[in-house]
Amino acid sequence: MTEFSKECMLEAIRFSKQNVDDGSGGPFGAVIAKDGKIISGASNKVTSTNDPTAHAEMEAIRSACKILNTFSLAGCEIYTSCEPCPMCLSAIHWARIEKIYYANTRKDAADINFDDDFIYNEVSKSVDDRVIPMVQIMNREAKKVFIDWKEKEDKIHY
Amino acid sequence: MTEFSKECMLEAIRFSKQNVDDGSGGPFGAVIAKDGKIISGASNKVTSTNDPTAHAEMEAIRSACKILNTFSLAGCEIYTSCEPCPMCLSAIHWARIEKIYYANTRKDAADINFDDDFIYNEVSKSVDDRVIPMVQIMNREAKKVFIDWKEKEDKIHY
Repeated sequence: MTEFSKECMLEAIRFSKQNVDDGSGGPFGAVIAKDGKIISGASNKVTSTNDPTAHAEMEAIRSACKILNTFSLAGCEIYTSCEPCPMCLSAIHWARIEKIYYANTRKDAADINFDDDFIYNEVSKSVDDRVIPMVQIMNREAKKVFIDWKEKEDKIHY
Repeated sequence: MTEFSKECMLEAIRFSKQNVDDGSGGPFGAVIAKDGKIISGASNKVTSTNDPTAHAEMEAIRSACKILNTFSLAGCEIYTSCEPCPMCLSAIHWARIEKIYYANTRKDAADINFDDDFIYNEVSKSVDDRVIPMVQIMNREAKKVFIDWKEKEDKIHY
């Protein structure tokens, strides 16, 4: 572990601790770094902002994208005080982050009653086997829009 | 399919089509409904807002939570013009949405070059087998914060 990695993770843990101290969300923090510099950091803000998607990693990603003025975090690393849940892991993929450092595991999260492991299992199931019912309707109408997109010449890829 | 479900999905598809027409993001739309009423709707805003997490479902969830002033969408349904990616499916779980209607599939999405299926596969792998390297550091320091959380008496569960 480099000194810089240690510094980044300490900052992520500091964000997680801040939430325990001031009560603004779950005990999670994350930091995005690029080229040996911290770009952004955040704590979980689910309960303080009424946003179930406001996990620390999501907030740090959104913030880094604003600061760097891009939807791609290629070349960046994320430091998170806990193994990312599948929402955050997927967001890390969409953001093209290249390396993940984590401290607590999903098992540690389960021990304090966070359901990451349950959602990992659900995401891995086939559509018909999931707890939340998934019903397909109107595929024909929706697919027309996909064809329009395919044929659109000036689209921005992401 | 009820008339109301048809109305909701048509609105989600309208949001997806809007993006193809005005170029503000990918061809995806979503609507949240509760008790026979549409609460919120959104299109994908990844490229227009430089936010890789701004999928249509995420935007519709955030918007519905703002409108209902809560981080729980228990009792709500989501209508999405395409099967949710694992980020959005996980967010649907965190938001406690109870039913998912979708139109296009992840296979349809792959046909127009969206990598949902790749990310589904990654999320299902064990930590050590993933394409993005995941390195655990400083578990001892981070776990202290989890213990503080466990012992905190006035925490807000979510």
